[in-house]
Amino acid sequence: MKGLWLENKQLQLRTDIPIPQPPPGEALVRVRSAGICNTDLELLRGYYPYTGILGHEFVGVVAQGPENLLNKRVVGEINAVCGKCRFCRSGQPTHCENRTVLGIVNRNGAFADYLCLPIENLHPVPDNVPTEVATFTEPIAAALEIQQQVPLSVSDRVLVVGDGKLGQLVAQTLALTGCDLLAVGRHRDKLANLEVRGIKTGFAEAVTDRAFDVSVECTGNPEGFAIARRALRPRGTLVLKSTYAGNLSLDVSSLVVDEITLIGSRCGPFSAALDLLAAEKVDVKPLIHATYPLSDALAAFEQAQGKGVLKVLLEIS
Amino acid sequence: MKGLWLENKQLQLRTDIPIPQPPPGEALVRVRSAGICNTDLELLRGYYPYTGILGHEFVGVVAQGPENLLNKRVVGEINAVCGKCRFCRSGQPTHCENRTVLGIVNRNGAFADYLCLPIENLHPVPDNVPTEVATFTEPIAAALEIQQQVPLSVSDRVLVVGDGKLGQLVAQTLALTGCDLLAVGRHRDKLANLEVRGIKTGFAEAVTDRAFDVSVECTGNPEGFAIARRALRPRGTLVLKSTYAGNLSLDVSSLVVDEITLIGSRCGPFSAALDLLAAEKVDVKPLIHATYPLSDALAAFEQAQGKGVLKVLLEIS
Repeated sequence: MKGLWLENKQLQLRTDIPIPQPPPGEALVRVRSAGICNTDLELLRGYYPYTGILGHEFVGVVAQGPENLLNKRVVGEINAVCGKCRFCRSGQPTHCENRTVLGIVNRNGAFADYLCLPIENLHPVPDNVPTEVATFTEPIAAALEIQQQVPLSVSDRVLVVGDGKLGQLVAQTLALTGCDLLAVGRHRDKLANLEVRGIKTGFAEAVTDRAFDVSVECTGNPEGFAIARRALRPRGTLVLKSTYAGNLSLDVSSLVVDEITLIGSRCGPFSAALDLLAAEKVDVKPLIHATYPLSDALAAFEQAQGKGVLKVLLEIS
Repeated sequence: MKGLWLENKQLQLRTDIPIPQPPPGEALVRVRSAGICNTDLELLRGYYPYTGILGHEFVGVVAQGPENLLNKRVVGEINAVCGKCRFCRSGQPTHCENRTVLGIVNRNGAFADYLCLPIENLHPVPDNVPTEVATFTEPIAAALEIQQQVPLSVSDRVLVVGDGKLGQLVAQTLALTGCDLLAVGRHRDKLANLEVRGIKTGFAEAVTDRAFDVSVECTGNPEGFAIARRALRPRGTLVLKSTYAGNLSLDVSSLVVDEITLIGSRCGPFSAALDLLAAEKVDVKPLIHATYPLSDALAAFEQAQGKGVLKVLLEIS
């Protein structure tokens, strides 16, 4: 089969990869659509030493698996877990000590004709959700993780920093809580996507210092972190939603004096994300920048790395 | 009156300072005993640009003030607040936007014959608590702040990093929650103070990676932070109890992947601290390294800056 292979920071479109045979408990999924995420771009830059097929945002059709899923469109949670370690047993499977992660840690990913995942990871896509839209299930779930970690009320003043793919999904999902929301970024056209949904937006200059209860950093760069930090009132909470290339230099004393909470945030609930998509409460269409066939995956990656580019999708079957 | 004056990173023992006249709502306190804190040493190194009399841990006797406090021994909360800003109104006066802070921000401190504080800041010292012991009320309150921010149960595995003044008080107060506690440091003799109270102790090598629910960083140095970080399980909480000279270089991506919470922690509840001292549930005597008269304050500071030195007290009247 075809697959986009990462090795030593080099991408290669291979056609010689054997179709995987699902081990017991796993299903074989024929991939239909997959999205390029910033994590893919960072893996390519060497953020984490991964060798194999990239890709973890996908929709596919079950080719081998249990009868109730066979030939159904599915999305899949990306952490394949052991079910036995202390985190699995304590209801925190995304932190399984023995996990593999689709297209990220020791498990071939979705930029290929086929992938394997544990059957328990798969969620059927509701009929009314188009395939390209459902490809956003994983990042929407990740955005929803914020609300699982930080309780929000309508009186909370919340800032989202970053108008990229993730920032836009974070802003859209946070807006559903009714909180007092401001989203800031650098691109008037991207912020316009949020404005039409009634979300207040602005550039960094619009952020009042020490005025927000919660800020969410979705840029992955030190400038974005600085905005999210200065926006917070004492005892406020800064949610770290992006990974960073290298270390960040932090004024820790000011965190102590202002008793700030920083909280890292990763994978979230798939079923809640699918519910939002089925109810059309999140609009992902403006985020789709371009769609390429898998055979043009290298060109798709070129484009995805361009400045200001939102989601690039691969159409696979 | 005499007072230890800080200006441009220079300490000066002055004898020409006028006795302050308390403004309405404040009391005049004749200082009896005061403790040198790491924050004092950091102010001396220029961590924050303060000019005036240093010192914020003290016991004194009310010389001018309301009748019920007159001639009584008191300790005092260090934040003098406006009572009107959004933080005062929301029950978070230690974060008052207009606060002055005794011996730290725009308010002359306790290393002097007299100080002024708002009457509402003063707490009478229970008769059975010796003056030198009550001098520890402020740092014990700061240690108790951790329990106000992070709920702890007997099943929680908690690590305290640092066997200095603050680390020892943090360990002693955390032990009272019944949590599964380990305190680590670099000094066998200091750790022995905790061992005799039934607290498990060790060197850094005793810390198992990813094994603790909560870690408390009380060293203020990057090595201590690294131990507190590696000790945490995914979704664990790292409490920052110390200020740091300069910035800390942080692997923020790992905080995201492990969904770690960092929380800064500062001033805490005085009345709870006095209750513990009255009930003799915290033992501060082993922490007293030396006592100097105010006239030898410069020598006292010399000693307090020595390696491995615990609390140095100034006996003032």
